[in-house]
Amino acid sequence: MTSKRTQQSEPEVVAGNGLLHRRALLGRGIALASVLGTGTGAALTRAAAEPMVDGLWSNEVGAVIPPYQVASRFEKNVVRTVDNPDNLPRNSRARTPHHLLNGIITPNGLHFTICHGGVPDIDPDKHRLVIHGLVKRPLVFTLDALARYPMVSRIGFVECGGNSAPLFSNIALQENVQALHGLASCSEWSGVLVSTLLDEVGIDPKAKWMICEGADSPRLHRSVPLTKGLDDAMIALYQNGERIQPGQGYPMRLWLPGYEGNMNVKYLRRIMLTEEPAMSIYESKTYSQILPNGKAYRFYFLQEVKSFISSPSHGMVLKEPGIHEITGVAYSGTGRITKVMVSADGGQSWAQAVLQDPVLPKAFTRFRIPWKWNGGPAILQSRAWDEGGNAQPLRADFVAARGQTSRPPQVTGFPSQHFNSITSWAVGSNGEVKHVYA
Amino acid sequence: MTSKRTQQSEPEVVAGNGLLHRRALLGRGIALASVLGTGTGAALTRAAAEPMVDGLWSNEVGAVIPPYQVASRFEKNVVRTVDNPDNLPRNSRARTPHHLLNGIITPNGLHFTICHGGVPDIDPDKHRLVIHGLVKRPLVFTLDALARYPMVSRIGFVECGGNSAPLFSNIALQENVQALHGLASCSEWSGVLVSTLLDEVGIDPKAKWMICEGADSPRLHRSVPLTKGLDDAMIALYQNGERIQPGQGYPMRLWLPGYEGNMNVKYLRRIMLTEEPAMSIYESKTYSQILPNGKAYRFYFLQEVKSFISSPSHGMVLKEPGIHEITGVAYSGTGRITKVMVSADGGQSWAQAVLQDPVLPKAFTRFRIPWKWNGGPAILQSRAWDEGGNAQPLRADFVAARGQTSRPPQVTGFPSQHFNSITSWAVGSNGEVKHVYA
Repeated sequence: MTSKRTQQSEPEVVAGNGLLHRRALLGRGIALASVLGTGTGAALTRAAAEPMVDGLWSNEVGAVIPPYQVASRFEKNVVRTVDNPDNLPRNSRARTPHHLLNGIITPNGLHFTICHGGVPDIDPDKHRLVIHGLVKRPLVFTLDALARYPMVSRIGFVECGGNSAPLFSNIALQENVQALHGLASCSEWSGVLVSTLLDEVGIDPKAKWMICEGADSPRLHRSVPLTKGLDDAMIALYQNGERIQPGQGYPMRLWLPGYEGNMNVKYLRRIMLTEEPAMSIYESKTYSQILPNGKAYRFYFLQEVKSFISSPSHGMVLKEPGIHEITGVAYSGTGRITKVMVSADGGQSWAQAVLQDPVLPKAFTRFRIPWKWNGGPAILQSRAWDEGGNAQPLRADFVAARGQTSRPPQVTGFPSQHFNSITSWAVGSNGEVKHVYA
Repeated sequence: MTSKRTQQSEPEVVAGNGLLHRRALLGRGIALASVLGTGTGAALTRAAAEPMVDGLWSNEVGAVIPPYQVASRFEKNVVRTVDNPDNLPRNSRARTPHHLLNGIITPNGLHFTICHGGVPDIDPDKHRLVIHGLVKRPLVFTLDALARYPMVSRIGFVECGGNSAPLFSNIALQENVQALHGLASCSEWSGVLVSTLLDEVGIDPKAKWMICEGADSPRLHRSVPLTKGLDDAMIALYQNGERIQPGQGYPMRLWLPGYEGNMNVKYLRRIMLTEEPAMSIYESKTYSQILPNGKAYRFYFLQEVKSFISSPSHGMVLKEPGIHEITGVAYSGTGRITKVMVSADGGQSWAQAVLQDPVLPKAFTRFRIPWKWNGGPAILQSRAWDEGGNAQPLRADFVAARGQTSRPPQVTGFPSQHFNSITSWAVGSNGEVKHVYA
């Protein structure tokens, strides 16, 4: 094989420090692959090509096909990070490895999970969902009964209110995208709309809230506005085609598209319609949004417009200058993403990224833009807009409004919720990518 | 709990034998759930509700969250059926259990797989993709090199040309939807367009075909029109977010949206541009389309418009008359599904099903329609149309054109490819659902 061929001409630059037009590469030769020896050239025969591509696996019988396929053993590091492996009596979190994924669907095995009392082992035949309180006809639903109602399928994200909490730190913590943003994931959910079941029970006009309770040992419960129940709330039974997994609330969870993760009550067993919210610990303390003046927002449900670059990102090393793809995900609890801008010079100039179809409301949207790294320092950022006209806030503005802290994110009582500002990755001349504030 | 309440009024019927308008149920009470005792009524307290929903799991600490979540132990039967568990030296198939799934995404573990020499165990760092033949610059690509090219993500199906082959039988085989239609699945695929790489190597104007070869032990290869390579063909690296699985061609496969499954060469290691097709065994014999006159179609690539009902379907038992949801998937290699009609009376009358968003080209589209089973015999059918104006053929028309056979589908030399006619499920008065021809 010979050395790499040279660029034919310079591609079209659309923003500072090498951001390229998405079609800039066509017909130019990106020169990332090795050229085969000119001796073989265009006439390279099968016999000549074979030694280049033949592996041991081509010369032995493969393994039996299993009933349920799992990932290759070479992908054993593509897992969630778990922060309570000994199952101590506290919260447990498992974070999605966004830097190792692509597209918008999070595979079920890698969807983020937070449990407040471990993962319950629920017998679906014995599980019941009761809807009662300010209703005309309190009803109890089995899984079999739910299966007969009209269902809907919808692709959308779930994000913990505490996702990205480390970015409230007043210094840029040296953590990767999994540690920083791994408490958000996106799936196709299928199930019965809450509105269908509310129609069944009949709503007492006095009802304003739904107290939704799980069957896990803390009997986790949250207050959900009845208006959300009448809108797009779903009793989710399936996730990416199969039954929702134990970490996602098997056999059923509440899914509130665009609302704070903790409200999407897993192991859902009870919806009580009430005039007043429950003021449970999860809405009055754990997931409360503390402001610089020491007060807290009450009922801050919406996960606002946000984006982050998943590649390149902290911990990666660019091996050589030249073309690289910058990609990540954007999402908003308000609706569709309308635009993602990317900067390679720390926000001095911006170029519009390509959004991958389908662009769905309250779902991950994959964005991409080609970038030609010149081998010098660069700071990569993304910024998203949604169809509500909301822009992802710049860090200075966000910190002024919502605060930052010198305390580690594990310490409660400091701002740690609903971070949706910009993430910056600095590429060094050595190709190392680090988390910075810029 | 009291007995079920009666229907308030009759919902709107839109076709014979109980097919209902999708909004027919709103406000009417479907009466599938149990009413809680009137003594507790609307004022049912938490204390009174708890015994109804409390399980053992609510009173013990749950399990530790694992790094990679797997399905509940109660879902252990949700697996693919494998037809070569001893890995004998022949083809092996694993079929998707559509009757147990919902939505349009097939989870990776349940995506159908066919291997002709077992599942190879490929080291991604050693795997290479060579593009050569009638090109200006033959190139060899590592996974690292591919990762730097602009990528795309797209949701779409793959279907084996032999999917539904049992329906060529002249008698309706008593098999379920997994056995009949389990060789089709749908995922989000992410990777590099073949056109991007063809741009890199430079196409010799004489080239008309791409001979695409896998690194599995049979070195499975197929001839693909260069026009498809320049259109939407992809080197797929990710499936539903994570790296494609060993059964899907890890570390890379060719994905040809809408084309016969076998052409979507797995373990892709070589693309040779040529003037003529290879006439490999897979295109000249195994997956050839034999017609009633004994001749065969040559190069019958497209998977045409098709649909099937996944629930209710063969093997299920409806426990009682009343409302049930009829649901299934429709897809076409031509493009988007535009319409799915459903019949409950064996094709005498039809009603339009709801298509779930997003309706994407060359992807599964989930359709749904509510149905009120009166407890008598019913024959359920679905029929799809695509944006190319193609209608799924009726069985009589299909058999006239393409034949049927008294030989079991395992016997080759008889029609067994590209079945896309209608599937009929008969519901008996006892609620049993069986495969029939109607």
